[in-house]
Amino acid sequence: MQEETNNILQRDQEKIAKKISKFIADKWKESQTSGVVIGLSGGLDSSTTAYLCARSLKNDQILGIIMPTVTTPDEDIEDAITVAEALGIEYEIIHVDDLIAPFKDLCIHAAQKKQGTSHNRELANANLKARIRMMILYYHANDLNRLVVGTGNRTELLVGYFTKYGDGGVDILPIGDLYKTDVRLLASHIEVPEGIIKKPPTAGLWAGQTDEEELGIKYGLLDKMLCLMVDKKMEDMDIAQKLGISIEEVLRIRAKVNSSTHKLKPAPSPETI
Amino acid sequence: MQEETNNILQRDQEKIAKKISKFIADKWKESQTSGVVIGLSGGLDSSTTAYLCARSLKNDQILGIIMPTVTTPDEDIEDAITVAEALGIEYEIIHVDDLIAPFKDLCIHAAQKKQGTSHNRELANANLKARIRMMILYYHANDLNRLVVGTGNRTELLVGYFTKYGDGGVDILPIGDLYKTDVRLLASHIEVPEGIIKKPPTAGLWAGQTDEEELGIKYGLLDKMLCLMVDKKMEDMDIAQKLGISIEEVLRIRAKVNSSTHKLKPAPSPETI
Repeated sequence: MQEETNNILQRDQEKIAKKISKFIADKWKESQTSGVVIGLSGGLDSSTTAYLCARSLKNDQILGIIMPTVTTPDEDIEDAITVAEALGIEYEIIHVDDLIAPFKDLCIHAAQKKQGTSHNRELANANLKARIRMMILYYHANDLNRLVVGTGNRTELLVGYFTKYGDGGVDILPIGDLYKTDVRLLASHIEVPEGIIKKPPTAGLWAGQTDEEELGIKYGLLDKMLCLMVDKKMEDMDIAQKLGISIEEVLRIRAKVNSSTHKLKPAPSPETI
Repeated sequence: MQEETNNILQRDQEKIAKKISKFIADKWKESQTSGVVIGLSGGLDSSTTAYLCARSLKNDQILGIIMPTVTTPDEDIEDAITVAEALGIEYEIIHVDDLIAPFKDLCIHAAQKKQGTSHNRELANANLKARIRMMILYYHANDLNRLVVGTGNRTELLVGYFTKYGDGGVDILPIGDLYKTDVRLLASHIEVPEGIIKKPPTAGLWAGQTDEEELGIKYGLLDKMLCLMVDKKMEDMDIAQKLGISIEEVLRIRAKVNSSTHKLKPAPSPETI
């Protein structure tokens, strides 16, 4: 993606910001709702998305919801508050642990009765947390007649690094077409606080988690690979050669992309008529 | 839809049943999971879908989850158990009220602080219930490495009579291409208990609710209208004339169909690259 990165670097970030802001304004008008609800984590994606919303809508049309758990670092909550205050938007802090606990009790108990061993309890718990956050956002959105704005980026969407019907459960995805690398460039341009831009990206699903460790690859390389694989439709061997990496690494990412497509499509039905 | 209804009546129901069963088996194989999880309400759609699953998969690959609230009639719970026992599949009963209560406390409190009046608390609560059921199904699906099978039919999907990321949040929709009227015919053929087929359809969102009352139209007429509108792409005036109903009624349903498309599509992103 060397050429592409350069293209994006050369491109007017302001043009991208305007395109996205117009998209938010258009979708909001179309929806005939009174505004938007957005989850604020204090991370790069949600902060950037909130800044873009604030370019399109009035302050009082944006409600930020901060949803920490016991393992959320104080710094992230503070960063999320900083974003809300900088933009002059309303915000709520809702601790989600109290909602997760009774849920787990009921479900794990039932699941254990059925099957002694769990296939993937950790996955189930991480997804549960993401889905509870989705429900909190939609509860407010329904109650106040608003849209839920998602904060997923193109990298996450392509490799399926999100929870289906969790953080993937939103009405619009303003930065859904931008690779993580590009989100960082845009964030800098629209003056998201430096501290937020420089933090190691994390999905915040457990203490000390970082995306790059979990994905087993740096975003810079991953974005280059995805650009060649998905946008340029290049063959795996050529990608490996071009980026100077092993074919196994390319195949590993290719498998992630292939197994994630179902997360982005509507549930399929068989043709019967 | 007079011709169409006749066509469907004349068509071999067994052929439809086989098509859907093959779809379930194919999707299950593709997914490399160990089986499926399905919510059983004791109603027509979920019972029919469970019967179809049992034609494709082994009994121990199907987990039925019954998720009543205090307002669920005992009869429905009994009917759901009857289905599970008739098919010899595993089932769980999980009462959802205990999960809803803490959620509402936390969210309503926060929402009220922000805005005294609610736009649509009833909608928020109904959707919350549907989303909690989705989370319960996925918790089990993740934990046991299974697919979540949805029970939505074509009528509901077209008019948006489901909760986005609630009962709409599933992996596959076996009867998603069948109108409600056609589900009833198929159910009869695959020997779903008569009592279940004859019950007035209800989404079970509050006591005494019936779909037809809430939709303001009988399924028979609605299905005819949708078939002309969506499948035959007929003009509104022609539909009104053909079915002998007012143009206002056709326009009312057309509006429902138009405003529901977003519920079936992936969340949109603006093109930025």
